[in-house]
Amino acid sequence: MKKNQIPGQIILAAEEIPKQWYNIKADMPNRPPAAISPRTHQPVTADELNAIFPMGVIEQEVTTERYIDIPAEVMEKYRLFRSTPLHRAYELEKALGTPARIYYKYEGTNPSGSHKLNSAVAQAYYNKTAGMKRIVTETGAGQWGTALAMATKMFEMDCTVYMVKVSYQQKPYRRSIMQLYGAEVIASPSNLTEIGRQILSKTPDTNGSLGDAIAEAVEIAATNKDANYALGSVLDHVILHQTIIGQEAKKQMELVDEYPDIIIGCNGGGSNFSGLAFPFLKDKFDGKADAKFIAVEAAACPKLTKGVYTYDYGDSVGMAPIAKMYSLGHSFRPSGIHAGGLRYHGDSPLLSQVYHDGFITAEAVNQTEVFESALLFAQKELIVPAPESAHAICQAVKEAEKCKESGEEKVILFNLSGHGYFDMTAYDMYLQGHIVDDIPGLDGEILRAQDEIKDIGV
Amino acid sequence: MKKNQIPGQIILAAEEIPKQWYNIKADMPNRPPAAISPRTHQPVTADELNAIFPMGVIEQEVTTERYIDIPAEVMEKYRLFRSTPLHRAYELEKALGTPARIYYKYEGTNPSGSHKLNSAVAQAYYNKTAGMKRIVTETGAGQWGTALAMATKMFEMDCTVYMVKVSYQQKPYRRSIMQLYGAEVIASPSNLTEIGRQILSKTPDTNGSLGDAIAEAVEIAATNKDANYALGSVLDHVILHQTIIGQEAKKQMELVDEYPDIIIGCNGGGSNFSGLAFPFLKDKFDGKADAKFIAVEAAACPKLTKGVYTYDYGDSVGMAPIAKMYSLGHSFRPSGIHAGGLRYHGDSPLLSQVYHDGFITAEAVNQTEVFESALLFAQKELIVPAPESAHAICQAVKEAEKCKESGEEKVILFNLSGHGYFDMTAYDMYLQGHIVDDIPGLDGEILRAQDEIKDIGV
Repeated sequence: MKKNQIPGQIILAAEEIPKQWYNIKADMPNRPPAAISPRTHQPVTADELNAIFPMGVIEQEVTTERYIDIPAEVMEKYRLFRSTPLHRAYELEKALGTPARIYYKYEGTNPSGSHKLNSAVAQAYYNKTAGMKRIVTETGAGQWGTALAMATKMFEMDCTVYMVKVSYQQKPYRRSIMQLYGAEVIASPSNLTEIGRQILSKTPDTNGSLGDAIAEAVEIAATNKDANYALGSVLDHVILHQTIIGQEAKKQMELVDEYPDIIIGCNGGGSNFSGLAFPFLKDKFDGKADAKFIAVEAAACPKLTKGVYTYDYGDSVGMAPIAKMYSLGHSFRPSGIHAGGLRYHGDSPLLSQVYHDGFITAEAVNQTEVFESALLFAQKELIVPAPESAHAICQAVKEAEKCKESGEEKVILFNLSGHGYFDMTAYDMYLQGHIVDDIPGLDGEILRAQDEIKDIGV
Repeated sequence: MKKNQIPGQIILAAEEIPKQWYNIKADMPNRPPAAISPRTHQPVTADELNAIFPMGVIEQEVTTERYIDIPAEVMEKYRLFRSTPLHRAYELEKALGTPARIYYKYEGTNPSGSHKLNSAVAQAYYNKTAGMKRIVTETGAGQWGTALAMATKMFEMDCTVYMVKVSYQQKPYRRSIMQLYGAEVIASPSNLTEIGRQILSKTPDTNGSLGDAIAEAVEIAATNKDANYALGSVLDHVILHQTIIGQEAKKQMELVDEYPDIIIGCNGGGSNFSGLAFPFLKDKFDGKADAKFIAVEAAACPKLTKGVYTYDYGDSVGMAPIAKMYSLGHSFRPSGIHAGGLRYHGDSPLLSQVYHDGFITAEAVNQTEVFESALLFAQKELIVPAPESAHAICQAVKEAEKCKESGEEKVILFNLSGHGYFDMTAYDMYLQGHIVDDIPGLDGEILRAQDEIKDIGV
């Protein structure tokens, strides 16, 4: 057993919670280019962003300062649920018979159930200080909507969530919990927005999509002066807020005298992977350590492993700013997978840049192997993982099995970004054998969607 | 602000987790009389109990030693989820405008979501060391079944859960999560037991009841030599295991230089109230402190406030041992309330004795006021409470409001025994105005049920 290790959680004392966020732009060799306005085809200006974002957030989107102080009011809220525990996965290790030592940072202990709350609290704070009375957003899987509902409640603001209609119908508990925190939850597309009415007049029976919901939320924010919009991933300021995860994890690994050889996170829009990885990536830039980083995506939405590094719209309807990122094409429609948070067509520009520059690697994994490792993890470590987070578990298991073959005692660290207690329908389907890997027409759909962005004009 | 207090969780260091359970029988002035065998009408013998319980548990049922060492193997599992956090409810205090200081011990952080895991782990361990391969139990609301499924998985045993049919149908996610932890979950009554077949032949369309499920589980345990039965509340050994809660809470209160004036827990079979209260009650016996203790029951199942202190069957069909306790009568049928864990007709004999002797008090509260305070709590403290636990919140709010009137700065401590993320159906009903307080025919039903136990023959 390593120094200081007894089976159980590795907890950071309250005074050890980091008081600054880490900004990778201070250290990365190449920075991603500025986002482009879809209207002017020139770099997006602060004024344009200010129509839907507060200045506090816009400043964080562009700053290159290495460390950004976490405001006292945000720290006060963070202390309600942070630090989060670091666990050594003793039981999982035993079950795998691996010489690897597996650690996971568990972000599901807060009442919203995922890491999303780290950015929701910060964004609610900056909107509150900018005088906003309401934040409007979209949610698909529901983790972001829940986190923002909770964060706005903390700062006594209103919250409106456009929830993709199919999720609204299939995940009534996710809807209830947002309502319980006082949020107004609207099935999207709705009759409450111009874009919603247009969509419904063309396709009255649509199930909705994340792209539609974003468009509705942005419309409301842009046309109401006391309402702003908030995004739960992808953008630089969101990634910044999530670096509290990796900074805590570094301190916790130090407490047990360890440093990871392999760092793993699942990858939808990039915020949970980057939140854990970037503070460790700094050590790689500084030449202090040489861990391997693995962003794990769903095989059904393989933007890093099958996408291209290009300029593309941030949303699916061509209204959001155009960013340079790995993308499958903004019109790409993933098949119905049970990890709603990994269905985004593109990726964080920061993550895309470090992937392009070879500092991190990526793997795509299939649903059935994901649920298989989720079940093993739940039975051994006793936490039901969110299907998204289970993608990270799946890769961690693969790496641990490689160690078993080679006899190497590698240290593996992954981000368990949220729990799956609201995802029991998916587990039920898996237990009944109804989850399959077949993704008919994937390659054709990627070709089609990428063809559409050839002439994007940037 | 009191010494050492910053907003946030009050966490006990790993080495401070208590290593012994506290046995109130060493200190209570009057001990409850021994349980009576329903067959012989003589005190139940260890041999009779041994048909369904391991000796380790039976010894704990009768011992009067003050402190019982927690076995190393149980401590190892406890460390996976203990200590649990103590929170000061700053936001709730602010919302109520009370001078009271409100603290809550949160037992919902473990993956099963409630305090039940404290006893499930211990019982699984004693059964494992007794050579058992399987534990059979019943579950109504689902918290106990989930905890036992998880605990048996920890010790690599099988688990069979007879789940009341109506819950099996209405709470599919509770069923799924037990299955996910490898448990066999059977809708009760079933065709797999003699008693189940009898019930079904008489009432083929029955929704089942906790009494039926207990009877089926006990039958399987009694007729299989490598299977035992386990109960999640009521019995002395279960209460014993739960005292880890109150012992931790005492240390945590000391960390912030506080001692509670009022100690509150909800009361179904007595295990979560007693688990928090008994270590503090010791100080009352010792003349060191004089806190007020309040066991909070559902107005629809008011065993302490409207029941009698008498001998009654532990189950609803008259097969279990007869114990002296507060009871509404074992055939009492509570109306359909949304706190399934509070529907038990009787109460822990230990709790009943200290209530009878005037050391603790009781209050009955109504559903709508319970959900009203649950909603306030969720919006202010950001944790969705289990409807059962919300009964404790409701009383804490009432006490805090009294302090507001009187200007007294009392210290209130309550047990938040579990989260309500699997109870969103009930919250949905409340938000839609479908939860009412009307309990038609309650008094008549109590009279009828109490009449039945007049001639119990003990």
